[in-house]
Amino acid sequence: MNLLFLTGNQHKFAEAKSILKAYDVKISPLNLNIEEIRSESCARVAEASAQSAYERARKPLFLEDAGLFVKALNGFPGTYSSWAFSRLGNKGLLRLMRGVENRSAKFVSAIAYVDSKGVRTFTGACEGEIALSARGKKGFGYDPLFIPKGSRKTFAQDAELKKQLSHRRKALEKFAHWYSLKMKKG
Amino acid sequence: MNLLFLTGNQHKFAEAKSILKAYDVKISPLNLNIEEIRSESCARVAEASAQSAYERARKPLFLEDAGLFVKALNGFPGTYSSWAFSRLGNKGLLRLMRGVENRSAKFVSAIAYVDSKGVRTFTGACEGEIALSARGKKGFGYDPLFIPKGSRKTFAQDAELKKQLSHRRKALEKFAHWYSLKMKKG
Repeated sequence: MNLLFLTGNQHKFAEAKSILKAYDVKISPLNLNIEEIRSESCARVAEASAQSAYERARKPLFLEDAGLFVKALNGFPGTYSSWAFSRLGNKGLLRLMRGVENRSAKFVSAIAYVDSKGVRTFTGACEGEIALSARGKKGFGYDPLFIPKGSRKTFAQDAELKKQLSHRRKALEKFAHWYSLKMKKG
Repeated sequence: MNLLFLTGNQHKFAEAKSILKAYDVKISPLNLNIEEIRSESCARVAEASAQSAYERARKPLFLEDAGLFVKALNGFPGTYSSWAFSRLGNKGLLRLMRGVENRSAKFVSAIAYVDSKGVRTFTGACEGEIALSARGKKGFGYDPLFIPKGSRKTFAQDAELKKQLSHRRKALEKFAHWYSLKMKKG
């Protein structure tokens, strides 16, 4: 049976599917409406959502919470990234960053896996900078504004770059490593 | 015994105390750390928080959730107002509104009262506009940016204006009216 990935975001699902394939972990989407908690930590949000989801689904599953933490904005939009994106878009973030010299930002991803034994979380981060303007059409969300350290391109300009460096890949790989060992042990 | 008002915000407490005095409702502050839910509705946030608070305190109490909903920003910062304020301040909101013609905004307040019989919510709203720059030193939060309809001053420039027109006053008066009747009935 495929492992359930709780997400309503088809971009996230496609990314996870492609990364987990290398670990022979096959996934299926699950769509449940879970009330998320408010917390400054992606790991804490993911953990609480996984607990709530398991109470309803009663099947092993995983989910992800991600956020963009911009240093000059005291961590905004952080764990509220997808909500802030839906309201303000990349245009809003660029406005907030107009004329700001320190453009450091960090993408964080937290995967929470839950089964009858409880929750395990796995995190990944990708350091980078906020671009001066939106560039590229690939990916989703803040990808057109995020330039990972060591690159001059945004995630939205280079899908391969994102696939290699992304916060989500790092968290998913930690999770996949642990999960495949667990499956082998049976 | 004084009625408990769950808040960590001393400005809110002072406002509520002064408004409820006219209804002979005396209040005491209660400080509990309640994990708020995410919702677009202040009433829904207040209701859920009141339920959680009652599970812990087991005493009749009320609390308030408030937010500033800016039309041109699709309701941002809404129910996340105090969080967004802590990250971006009034400066951030002004940046987001730079050059924006439609400056309509609405302050919303939702009071939730809870006792052994359940939760009752009372809402109030105040329509207005976002100023072109911060003005005044009274009040708190977004008050220096909010000009209520019919006025040329911000809430932070005129405490009396705020006391008369505020969203919080409207919600508190509805609540106080209901609560004092309930107390008379015994």
